[in-house]
Amino acid sequence: MKRNLHIVKIGGNIIDNPEKLSGFLKDFSKIKEPKILVHGGGKIATDIAEKMGIKQKMIDGRRVTDSDTLRIISMVYAGLINKNIVAELSANGNSALGLSGVDADSILATRRPTNPIDFGFVGDVHKVNGESINKILDIGFVPVFCAITHDGKGQLLNTNADTIANAISTEMSENYNCFLYYCFEKKGVLENIEDDNSVISKITPNDYETLKQEGKIFQGMIPKIDNAFSAIKKGVKAVYIMRAEELYSSFLTKKYNGTKISEY
Amino acid sequence: MKRNLHIVKIGGNIIDNPEKLSGFLKDFSKIKEPKILVHGGGKIATDIAEKMGIKQKMIDGRRVTDSDTLRIISMVYAGLINKNIVAELSANGNSALGLSGVDADSILATRRPTNPIDFGFVGDVHKVNGESINKILDIGFVPVFCAITHDGKGQLLNTNADTIANAISTEMSENYNCFLYYCFEKKGVLENIEDDNSVISKITPNDYETLKQEGKIFQGMIPKIDNAFSAIKKGVKAVYIMRAEELYSSFLTKKYNGTKISEY
Repeated sequence: MKRNLHIVKIGGNIIDNPEKLSGFLKDFSKIKEPKILVHGGGKIATDIAEKMGIKQKMIDGRRVTDSDTLRIISMVYAGLINKNIVAELSANGNSALGLSGVDADSILATRRPTNPIDFGFVGDVHKVNGESINKILDIGFVPVFCAITHDGKGQLLNTNADTIANAISTEMSENYNCFLYYCFEKKGVLENIEDDNSVISKITPNDYETLKQEGKIFQGMIPKIDNAFSAIKKGVKAVYIMRAEELYSSFLTKKYNGTKISEY
Repeated sequence: MKRNLHIVKIGGNIIDNPEKLSGFLKDFSKIKEPKILVHGGGKIATDIAEKMGIKQKMIDGRRVTDSDTLRIISMVYAGLINKNIVAELSANGNSALGLSGVDADSILATRRPTNPIDFGFVGDVHKVNGESINKILDIGFVPVFCAITHDGKGQLLNTNADTIANAISTEMSENYNCFLYYCFEKKGVLENIEDDNSVISKITPNDYETLKQEGKIFQGMIPKIDNAFSAIKKGVKAVYIMRAEELYSSFLTKKYNGTKISEY
């Protein structure tokens, strides 16, 4: 019988708030079943780029990763944020292992084509090395991934953290019952953006079409939900979009207050 | 019978020279027996501190690690340098795993007492977790350590890379025949600092005393050699101080051109 594996992604807003992050890590550390953490980057990289006088270029609201920016991202994501998260998990009794997609050759990506838009050193996931991640889980470590991958030829690449969480969940579904949690500062997907309590408890593909047509699902949420449906189609058992603070209580009560993305 | 394990430390001068570093990594990747790489930091951290306007304070030629400097060190050592080294090793066919002492709880340190001199967030190695490193070696990964440790309570600490290489070699000697290589830009310990070819091929404790009395062994070299002798006393089979470029040819020919530190 397959064991459960919980893949939890925390977003930038949690990373940017040391108190919230600590609380979250304390909760995450209590999860007893096999688990993987994937973290985003937050605003630190932008702050540091500014201090170093490296101009950040945005196209359609997305960051262009030139070589200076890639250096900053490698430093901030894989160094500063990742190691501090691992240190906190360790203090909470978890033997965590900080990883980028380069480590243990775990996530191979392809540099995004420069046409029509050149986003620089941005990579789209090509292959998750399930065998490597399995080995790490089997020896009892808790993998903590930052959102950096590589092309297998020595080049680091900047990759979206949601996509990484999705790709890992999908790949690991071969050996585990995978559950994917997108944890952020809101309670879930909201029916009315101005009402924090208007959480939609479940979204099926049919609901999704209606919600998009009604304009209730926003630009930033669309790739997240698309991602979630694609994960479910590829074998992930369930995807939750939820408030970081509610992750552990959800585990205890088996009652998920966020939004469940479900095929039916 | 114990297997061999090669622990190689590369210094800052190699890190600062991308061509030399690439050549070295190509060579290192060809070593077939179990191996561990430990890398120093080079000048990049100082350059970045300068760009960010963070003043570096030195006492007796040693860097004081205040909290801003610790952030930079975490970024540069564990992020930028470590991940680029791992990516290159991966491109050369090694499944490398970038680690700090925080990861897999591998190196625990104690913050250095602030009296008589407060060096800030500097840690002295307290315990190397041989069990964790063993597990990583057993599943076939090549550990690549940067010089960051932790106190087990969530605090990262800056630790000397030579000391880390030494402490790992000593701890791993329980299960392996450990060989420790300090690779840097010179051919070995020189009898005459102005003559690059005056390499002392072997130093025993007796030789060492004489060389120190004659003033032939310099300030920076003393802790390195002290370290080497302490490693040998604790079971490490041999310690070499050598030019990075000669590591692999030495492996092939079993003839070490650098300085061998030996008990007799």
